[in-house]
Amino acid sequence: MLAPISCNGYSIYFNEDGYEQLNHYIQQRNPSRIFILTDENTNEHCIPAFMGKMPADFNAEIIEIEAGEIHKTIATCNEVWQVLSELGADRKSLLINLGGGVVTDLGGFVASTFMRGIDFVNVPTSLLAMVDASVGGKTGVDLGPLKNQVGVINVPGILIVDTSMLTTLPFDEMRSGLAEMLKHGLIQDENYWAAFRDLSALDISDLDKLIRDSIIIKNNIVVQDPREAGLRKSLNFGHTLGHAIESYFLQAPEKMTLLHGEAIAIGMILETWLSVQTQQFPEEKLEDITRVILSYFPKVVIEQKDIAPILSYLKYDKKNTHGHINFLLLKDIGTPVIDARADDDLLVQSFAYYNEQSQKA
Amino acid sequence: MLAPISCNGYSIYFNEDGYEQLNHYIQQRNPSRIFILTDENTNEHCIPAFMGKMPADFNAEIIEIEAGEIHKTIATCNEVWQVLSELGADRKSLLINLGGGVVTDLGGFVASTFMRGIDFVNVPTSLLAMVDASVGGKTGVDLGPLKNQVGVINVPGILIVDTSMLTTLPFDEMRSGLAEMLKHGLIQDENYWAAFRDLSALDISDLDKLIRDSIIIKNNIVVQDPREAGLRKSLNFGHTLGHAIESYFLQAPEKMTLLHGEAIAIGMILETWLSVQTQQFPEEKLEDITRVILSYFPKVVIEQKDIAPILSYLKYDKKNTHGHINFLLLKDIGTPVIDARADDDLLVQSFAYYNEQSQKA
Repeated sequence: MLAPISCNGYSIYFNEDGYEQLNHYIQQRNPSRIFILTDENTNEHCIPAFMGKMPADFNAEIIEIEAGEIHKTIATCNEVWQVLSELGADRKSLLINLGGGVVTDLGGFVASTFMRGIDFVNVPTSLLAMVDASVGGKTGVDLGPLKNQVGVINVPGILIVDTSMLTTLPFDEMRSGLAEMLKHGLIQDENYWAAFRDLSALDISDLDKLIRDSIIIKNNIVVQDPREAGLRKSLNFGHTLGHAIESYFLQAPEKMTLLHGEAIAIGMILETWLSVQTQQFPEEKLEDITRVILSYFPKVVIEQKDIAPILSYLKYDKKNTHGHINFLLLKDIGTPVIDARADDDLLVQSFAYYNEQSQKA
Repeated sequence: MLAPISCNGYSIYFNEDGYEQLNHYIQQRNPSRIFILTDENTNEHCIPAFMGKMPADFNAEIIEIEAGEIHKTIATCNEVWQVLSELGADRKSLLINLGGGVVTDLGGFVASTFMRGIDFVNVPTSLLAMVDASVGGKTGVDLGPLKNQVGVINVPGILIVDTSMLTTLPFDEMRSGLAEMLKHGLIQDENYWAAFRDLSALDISDLDKLIRDSIIIKNNIVVQDPREAGLRKSLNFGHTLGHAIESYFLQAPEKMTLLHGEAIAIGMILETWLSVQTQQFPEEKLEDITRVILSYFPKVVIEQKDIAPILSYLKYDKKNTHGHINFLLLKDIGTPVIDARADDDLLVQSFAYYNEQSQKA
């Protein structure tokens, strides 16, 4: 059995232990009604497994939303608030969010704001939601192309990671979670990073432990800096440029939509290159990181004409203060530098490095 | 000078002292940008007075929303979030909510959720917002006809009560605040209630002190029971039926819209009558309360056909648990009874009492 992880205000339980703890939780809270928020995919692939592991007398209403980041909006929240009202949810109701990050982020926000806050439980079903959204209490939705612009900090009653849910997850969704796991290694733990350096040495049976270790790395950071005053900003590695790329590709009609992790993978290469230029990050490690990331992730073409509009999204970054764009860069693997600056010329050059390497690879 | 009131997590400052404290607060927090949320009325009547009392170098962008409870919606929040994004608000920005309860409730929610929470200051400009919304940290908006169905608990950095703002407030808006002041007397303090018994004995110069005393009564309740586990429910006196009446009149096309306080005034008469029937509340005090309330408030006609749809709104009441409607009733003035029940027959009869008294008055 994988031991639980104690987070700020709740605990994360794994696999069979998770269902046992969820039953305890329900007995103890005695909710008036139970609702499960899912999307069309998890309703089909994960709800049957979830129900099969709950006791026979477990009774819940299922609320389904449309799948995909594009539906992580206030409009979708509005629908869920309405449905909860119509189904007679009250302040003692419980919402179980069963799905990927869209469902857990949006469902956490809906629960935190419905009648000014009802109990909720998260059951992340994607690798990304397990290793990233599971810790830190960030809930919320996008505002047009601006990611997570509206939300609150609030934690679930308990959280269950059931790794068997991953068996139905598409390969490119797995990769999205992998990007965050790689990031956790790069910002905190060179040994953890090394586990991913050689794909062929990875055994699928290691995955449970790698997931748990990834959560522990993130949780240690969040516990030390819950208010994002310093260290926690290191979790934004790859995300400043990654979010801008993701936002740009999301709204550009002729571009494919990048998964969050695919955009972050590019962002990590760009920001490691910036780290070499401004923080004396070792150049040979940049080459190694670029090689590993490009071995897992698709090689995206970012054209010259895309760069200016991508950079224009940086002005919406939540880490900005007083008109400055704050980057998280690295001095070395495991040594983050917070509130770093990089001028526009360097930003443009970083894309040239990415394009050159991805075409070479 | 009226002394400040220390609330849970912030303080309320009065009149000139308020502006001095606001300037301290701004110097100390050093916000990157300052935005003022107003509605069309306060933008015209209160912003000039507010600006006139701030230092010459005070600089803020004004965001105006449409006035009225009907605009206290997620759609309006969406507009304000968008405008904040477009104007370049960041996590270190400050939002000053200057207006009645719609502006302070909605603005508090927008600030609490924009980028997962930015600083905000409330400057209530209506009597209702001063004596009611100023304490307790309730922020939020309505969901269709359901009042405050979506929101969070969060408090402003500081709150300013400038009673000179009331000089431009219409008479019926003054009355809306009066309803809450009467309620504070009825649930907590017979002496405070007595101050309102004889209109002719009231001196307008007493108003500042009565406002401050009303806030103190509410604050004492909230400080003792921040989570609304018991005593705080007494603040719902008149509100269970009052909200249902308000919701019904809001959506019924042929009905005039009742102001919040006008609906609560009716609710207090109905619920005092229920208190006589079920809690041995003294009957002669019921007559006195009915007389005083009807002397201040319009006599609304509630037809037989309105009663069933009004009562159907009770099932959305946020105080409901496990399918029961929980009332706040009184054993005597100053002695609330929480989680009281009343059967449907009595509810219908209470309307008959109201109609009879209001036609007589």
